[in-house]
Formats: sequence, C-alpha cells, structure tokens
Amino acid sequence: MDIVILGSGNVATHLAYALKKAQYHIRQVYSPNFSHAKHLADGIGAEPLDDLRYVTSEADVYLIAVKDEAIESVAAALRLRNKILLHTSGSTDINVLTPFSSCYGVIYPLQTISKEVELDFTKVPLILEFSDPETKAELMNLAFKLSPLIYEYNSEQRRCLHLGAVIACNFSNYLYAIAHDFLTEKKVDFNLLRPLIVETANKAQDHNPKDVQTGPAVRNDQQIIDKHINLLQQHEDWQRVYRLLSEGIVKKFWNESKYDDKI
Amino acid sequence: MDIVILGSGNVATHLAYALKKAQYHIRQVYSPNFSHAKHLADGIGAEPLDDLRYVTSEADVYLIAVKDEAIESVAAALRLRNKILLHTSGSTDINVLTPFSSCYGVIYPLQTISKEVELDFTKVPLILEFSDPETKAELMNLAFKLSPLIYEYNSEQRRCLHLGAVIACNFSNYLYAIAHDFLTEKKVDFNLLRPLIVETANKAQDHNPKDVQTGPAVRNDQQIIDKHINLLQQHEDWQRVYRLLSEGIVKKFWNESKYDDKI
Repeated sequence: MDIVILGSGNVATHLAYALKKAQYHIRQVYSPNFSHAKHLADGIGAEPLDDLRYVTSEADVYLIAVKDEAIESVAAALRLRNKILLHTSGSTDINVLTPFSSCYGVIYPLQTISKEVELDFTKVPLILEFSDPETKAELMNLAFKLSPLIYEYNSEQRRCLHLGAVIACNFSNYLYAIAHDFLTEKKVDFNLLRPLIVETANKAQDHNPKDVQTGPAVRNDQQIIDKHINLLQQHEDWQRVYRLLSEGIVKKFWNESKYDDKI
Repeated sequence: MDIVILGSGNVATHLAYALKKAQYHIRQVYSPNFSHAKHLADGIGAEPLDDLRYVTSEADVYLIAVKDEAIESVAAALRLRNKILLHTSGSTDINVLTPFSSCYGVIYPLQTISKEVELDFTKVPLILEFSDPETKAELMNLAFKLSPLIYEYNSEQRRCLHLGAVIACNFSNYLYAIAHDFLTEKKVDFNLLRPLIVETANKAQDHNPKDVQTGPAVRNDQQIIDKHINLLQQHEDWQRVYRLLSEGIVKKFWNESKYDDKI
C-alpha cells in the first residue's frame, strides 16, 4: 500500500514516521514550503513536493494532514476519484472529502503532538471514521499497525473529543507556561512545580477531577485569592485568567452541590 | 519531640500521618469540629480536642495547619511563649506568628493534597522558613525525616510558588473537570483524554511549556476556535474560559516573538 503525505506539520511528521516504521512505503511528501517538504521527505525516504500538480496518481492512500481550512482545497487539487483520501482533523467533518473521492475517511490521532518530542504512537488512540465498509476494511489493518487503541466515532463525537482535549491539555499547558513565566520573573525555580504538575495529571487518572480539586478557590478562600490577584498586578492578562478560573471553581463547588453545607 | 496538630484538613491529615510514620509522638489533634478532630486523632493515636483551651502546654512543636485566615487566631489562643509554632501556608507570611512565640517557622508542603488520595511524602518538596538559626537547627531533623526535598525560601518567594502551583495545578484540574463534564454530557468517553492529560504533564517535565504548546490557538486557527465556542453554547461559563485562554495563547504566540514570521 503506497502512501502520499500531504502536509509537513506535527501530525504529518509523526504519522509519516509511524507509517514508515510499520513498513509502509511513503512515495511523496507535499508542503507548500519546499524546505519543509524536503526535511520530512528526506527523513523517510520519500520525494519532496511543493506543487500539488506533481502528486502521483498511482499511490493507494492520500493522507491529508494540513490545517483544517486547507483540507478541502488540497483534496480538490489532487483530482483523484477512486483513491482513498484521509484527513487527520479532530474538528473537520468527514463529509468535507465527499466531493473528491468515493472512498475516504478520517484518522484522528488523539494526542498532543509536538514535532520536537518523540512519540510512541502505539499509545496514541486513533479515532476513525470511514465513508463505507469497504474503505474501513482496507484501512483497519493500517490503523492497527499504528496503534492498538482504535475507536470509531462519528464527526460530531470527534469534534467534542477534540474540544475536550483542547480544554484539558492545550489550555493546561498554557497555564504551565504562565506559571513558568511568572516564577522565572520572580526568580523562583519552576522545577519545583514539575512534580506537582505530574501529580495533578496522575490524580485525574483514577478519579473524577472534581473529586480531587484543591486550592484556594475550592475552599472559597477570598483572602488568598485577593493576595494572588494582587501579586499578578503587573500582568493584567494573567489576572484575568486567575479571576475567571477562580470564579468558575467557586461557582462549581459552592453554588452547586456544597452550597447548603458551607454557607 | 512531642507534637500537637491544630487542624484536621488535607494538609493536617497528611502531615500528621507522615509525622507518625517518622515515629513522632502526636499528643493532640484540634479541630473546631469534634468529629473531624476525632477522626484524625483516632488514626494516629492522639487525643482529639475541639477547644483550644485544652491544648497542652507541654508539647514541643505546635503545627498550625488551618485555613490561612484562622492561623493568627489559633496561634493567639494557644498562649505559648517559648514553644515552636509552625504554620503550613504557602500564602501567609512567617511574621503572622511573631507576636505569639520567640521561635517559629513555616513548613509548606508543595503538593496538591487531597484527603482521599494517598501521598508519598518523601516526594513532596518542603518549603521552609524559620524565625532564627536555633529554631532551624531544631526543625531540620524533623523536616528531613518527612522528605529529603528541603528548600529554604522567604515568605515572598513562597507566596509566588503557591500562586504558581494554583495556576499550573489547581486550575489545570479545573480544566480537566470542565472537559469531563462536557464529554459526559455529549456521551463521549472521558477515559480517552486521560493518557493525553498525562502526556501533557510529562512534556512539561523536560521542556519549557511554551516550546510544546499545541492546539488551534497556537496555530491561530480561528475557524476551529469559532466552532469550539459554538459547541459550548449551552455553557456560557465554559465559553468564557475557552475564549480567554485562546486569546491568551494567540496573544502570547502571535503578538510576541512570532509576529513578523507568521503575518
């Protein structure tokens, strides 16, 4: 099964290496930026391209791992009718591919993917959706060679999952970044927070997060909340984040179930 | 060295058990709620109290692990002059104890502590501060028996650390809770996010968080951001969180270093 990779970003890169590792032959890598295409193509022994007109029509699977808003135009430019088109987006409907081929699908790797970080793909859940049972049959083998964690979800569920991942992961990482910048500015060692960050994530593994919520807001400790907002006075952005999330926690834990108990 | 524990919350509970494990004799546990005092005291073989007037004056160390705003009144009610008073607060100055004894200090366990979750105290950094070198000399032994991770910081640094921990950990857990509630409502399995949550925390262990930021906002992908905000339309609170954090990420990654590069 010959594959063409459209895209050279984080998802394209990790998928390309995982496919190569699973002994698939990747014929071409396309990116509008030739040096990006070449960088990835060189690593996996493929041909780099920066022009969609030169994409071969003789591969079996065309894996479109580009920004969501570019999926449609890339699929259109391929001008293939009976080849399997796949996209990798959490937030894009499978039907975006309908006009461009009779067999298509989605492989959405549910993972936080950075180019810089090595990734064990066998631990990444793959959320799959297919246009029809035949395409599914053709692709399941490939999917299982990448990861044993295979889930079939429809486009709406996939979108919700992606949104959940953005909230729980992307936004958490942004909070780590705020803490990092704040402590660095105050000449306090960010390393001290690192075990705490892992412990927080670990606690969410076997608990409902709301049952292990800690901190001043869940105690409705307004004195500390005010002190903290004061400490952030040089950074209006961070103050707004602190205020909104604290208010959310107070509201969740005080206005709901525990209201009567604590007032 | 005999110890009295004032308080019966998360920090008091975990410290009490860690001290007992380190062979210290805990004489009394005080809580204004007698059944709380008794629950903890029974577990560690101490006497439960709900009245500060009956606190013994014959212990060596009085460990005040209560809500920040209660530290001062508890310390005052003890009426001890030459006994070691300790508090455990990240956000309270050491000087709150100055009027009440000549020897005092702070042991702030930098960890996310839930009563329900067992805690290996030897992995918890202890942030220490002392009124004077003699008190330090007396307490260092005790501290090292609890954890090898000992740091001396002043009150201002400790407060910043605590604030950093609230941002990076308490707030992250709240985001996990939002994702949990959202996916549950949409009948999507929250378990799928759990490996992702751990991976996100792990990436922050050996990277600067800003170097591993992923998601639609760091790509300034307004189309997905709008879709997500739309998906959250039943929950104005969550929409506000999504909007503010996305704006923060866009601003951090687009208005700062990468502005020229990406426009």
